Amino acid sequence: MVGIREIAKRANVSISTASYAINGSSKVKTETRDRILAIANELNYIPNMAGRTLKKQKTNLIGVYLTNYGGAFYGELVSGIHDFLHQHHYDVIICSSERAHTFIPEKMVDGAIILDSTFSTEKIESYAARGHQMVVLDRELSHQNVCSVLLDNRGGAKKALLALEKKVTKKIYLVTGPPGTYDSNERLAAAKKCLEERKLSYEVILGDFSKESGRQAAREILQKSEKEVGIFCLNDEMAIGMYSVFQKSNWKIGKDIHIVGFDNIEVTHYLRPRLTTIDYSKSDWGKAAAEKIYFMLNGKQPSNQLVDVKLKGGKSVGSI
Amino acid sequence: MVGIREIAKRANVSISTASYAINGSSKVKTETRDRILAIANELNYIPNMAGRTLKKQKTNLIGVYLTNYGGAFYGELVSGIHDFLHQHHYDVIICSSERAHTFIPEKMVDGAIILDSTFSTEKIESYAARGHQMVVLDRELSHQNVCSVLLDNRGGAKKALLALEKKVTKKIYLVTGPPGTYDSNERLAAAKKCLEERKLSYEVILGDFSKESGRQAAREILQKSEKEVGIFCLNDEMAIGMYSVFQKSNWKIGKDIHIVGFDNIEVTHYLRPRLTTIDYSKSDWGKAAAEKIYFMLNGKQPSNQLVDVKLKGGKSVGSI
Repeated sequence: MVGIREIAKRANVSISTASYAINGSSKVKTETRDRILAIANELNYIPNMAGRTLKKQKTNLIGVYLTNYGGAFYGELVSGIHDFLHQHHYDVIICSSERAHTFIPEKMVDGAIILDSTFSTEKIESYAARGHQMVVLDRELSHQNVCSVLLDNRGGAKKALLALEKKVTKKIYLVTGPPGTYDSNERLAAAKKCLEERKLSYEVILGDFSKESGRQAAREILQKSEKEVGIFCLNDEMAIGMYSVFQKSNWKIGKDIHIVGFDNIEVTHYLRPRLTTIDYSKSDWGKAAAEKIYFMLNGKQPSNQLVDVKLKGGKSVGSI
Repeated sequence: MVGIREIAKRANVSISTASYAINGSSKVKTETRDRILAIANELNYIPNMAGRTLKKQKTNLIGVYLTNYGGAFYGELVSGIHDFLHQHHYDVIICSSERAHTFIPEKMVDGAIILDSTFSTEKIESYAARGHQMVVLDRELSHQNVCSVLLDNRGGAKKALLALEKKVTKKIYLVTGPPGTYDSNERLAAAKKCLEERKLSYEVILGDFSKESGRQAAREILQKSEKEVGIFCLNDEMAIGMYSVFQKSNWKIGKDIHIVGFDNIEVTHYLRPRLTTIDYSKSDWGKAAAEKIYFMLNGKQPSNQLVDVKLKGGKSVGSI
């Protein structure tokens, strides 16, 4: 294959000039650049990641795998990941598709951060067995090549219920995320345990973390329940959906119905009454994940981490 | 270099079994997989994108370049891009760093979609000259390898001012984005032209598209202006920042002060009074960009496109 050396020679320029021209640097005059590019094209020169990867066995890329691109807190999370890694000379690529999983065994990325329910634990284990290093944000997994940075979902659920219990004596509804998702399962298990210990009446309504499922749950509660009940929505999106239904009913949020969410996403700051929810720093979560993968790639064995959460009080839980 | 054929031979399995094992497929028993992986490791087998790229000269990857990861409408835009391309057997990677720009000349991506103010036009032109194909969402650029899909910023600015003019006779403030950004420049130019044609008094306040710059502009207006003026914020984020300042003053939004934003981001739906803003479909914008790059990669020469925008009326512009 033709190398940059030959292009430089034919163009009668230095190797660095040829390299600048090919990489589109403004350090080379347009005229010179065009001449170099014409020679490169003529010789069918292919600069590529491939060559670099084979030589260095490293791409300095970290793959961040998300279930989809729509999550309200992804921006802050990914910014937290990016900022840390960029400072440490790694670049981040964000992926969301099954085919992109193969970037890991193909060594297109040096490591991965995973918050992707479509990424099977079996596959992660198999990559780990091959020596690939990963940080998981959405499951527990014990392997020397995998480190987890998880939200304190159980602690958050307890705090949410503690807030509700003070105001609600009748019944508490738990509205879940999609079945099988780690965050939803953890929050639900902790909430049920809490309520059973305190012998409080509760009912589980199946949701899917979307606003629409929140609206459906609200309509169901309006239909079958009396006033003065509490709702723990396992994420904020569903709580936002609920607001739109209750605000059209004669049930007053914070009086007839008490709602707690989870995530403290930006939109909830503009709800009236303001939503009581479970808060955590999305960018700190991202930063912690970035630190772990960075340490792992540099031969260290960091320990798993739990990300602190706290109650963010709002008027959606009021006094009866 | 060791190939998959040799691994299969040593493990006494078929090539496809060896391949499944290495790619982490669940089709292979754990026991068999571990044995194959051990052999692959022993032989120092490196499956990589590199080999595939060199063979096929195609990665079926499209790079999406964003200025940062924080933009409120990125989720919908990227989902629109992803959904179309995924259906057409392309994968998307989202990048936001200068070093990632070189994925294009390195042919790690087959094409690129760019909404990234840190990506210089000169560099894009140089990549285009090398035969790389790109779709730009944030600049005008005439090259056979570049196609643009732009918001109708000028049309949007006119609609925003038309809404304000009906209610405001005194003065209109124009609060800009960061200097040099295409969307801000276009909106500002169209707004100024509109106001000059109608001989309306106006003043430009420099912002940077952040909430904080909106708050600063609001404080400046409160200090130096009389009531009954209008504000055209060149994006919604700044309008949201303004709300927090005016709502603490004795100026009533929609009565003493009239505000129009741009983007119709989700948070504005929860502002009271609801913000009048310029709306467009972020996912349609993404889909249009995806279609263009897909057509270009398949030998077609699609034409540039302007994305329609429309006024979304709210109570932030009221009657005096």
